[in-house]
Amino acid sequence: MIEWFDDLALGMRFKSPAKLITREDIKRFALEFDPQPYHLDETAAEQTPLKGLAASGWHTAAIAMRLAVEARPFGPHPLLGLGVDELRWLAPVRPGDVIRLKGEVIELTPSRTKPQGTVRIKWTAFNQHGNPVYTFTPIGVVPRRPGGV
Amino acid sequence: MIEWFDDLALGMRFKSPAKLITREDIKRFALEFDPQPYHLDETAAEQTPLKGLAASGWHTAAIAMRLAVEARPFGPHPLLGLGVDELRWLAPVRPGDVIRLKGEVIELTPSRTKPQGTVRIKWTAFNQHGNPVYTFTPIGVVPRRPGGV
Repeated sequence: MIEWFDDLALGMRFKSPAKLITREDIKRFALEFDPQPYHLDETAAEQTPLKGLAASGWHTAAIAMRLAVEARPFGPHPLLGLGVDELRWLAPVRPGDVIRLKGEVIELTPSRTKPQGTVRIKWTAFNQHGNPVYTFTPIGVVPRRPGGV
Repeated sequence: MIEWFDDLALGMRFKSPAKLITREDIKRFALEFDPQPYHLDETAAEQTPLKGLAASGWHTAAIAMRLAVEARPFGPHPLLGLGVDELRWLAPVRPGDVIRLKGEVIELTPSRTKPQGTVRIKWTAFNQHGNPVYTFTPIGVVPRRPGGV
């Protein structure tokens, strides 16, 4: 069981549960945070490069955060991020899509001064067709096992 | 007035309106997308590295998107991003904070094959004390002026 930084290893993999995204979810998020035609109006969205209604990229990012929390990569420790690298939207997320997240530990760096380490997990979100729609690599901080390794 | 890729210039700056973040906003977003103690429970949050209730980083990111839309850096053209580089959370966003966004064009790359260009704007969100709380550099796509420069 993973509990501390010391329990993580390069190449370790995680999977999240699945999450359905509805038309109502897409419009509600967009109305509050990203009020643009791609995300609010089916007819107008047809005329855009997205060729139809699609979730705001930040909505996809927020759902991916929820799925990462549910994947519990750090066991009982919450996810706390300093930032994110390589955030890319790969394909539109449509009403009715079901998203899952897969992650892999790609970097582990123990702190030289604090009882913790930074962890980079490359997460990729896939839709129900198995196509990648989004990827991001957050920089997480996890405490070291008390009393040394 | 900015209308096309060709109207943008390196060093061009943008400012957004301000946005107040309430305790209720923070908890509502967290309950849906980032259900962790930092963002949901005042007492539990005191015991974390954030030392008190703070907005989910993805909530701050979503608010920043809204403010970027309102800053209209591409004039009538909507914001469409391929991804984001250098996303960093710099300080906690607290209940009652008022956030503003400032942006600067740092890279302009015309496409060699399509009538468009990619634009990197480094955005930084500041709170009411003038302290930076968040920064991100989205990679935007903007059409070129029809009929050449």
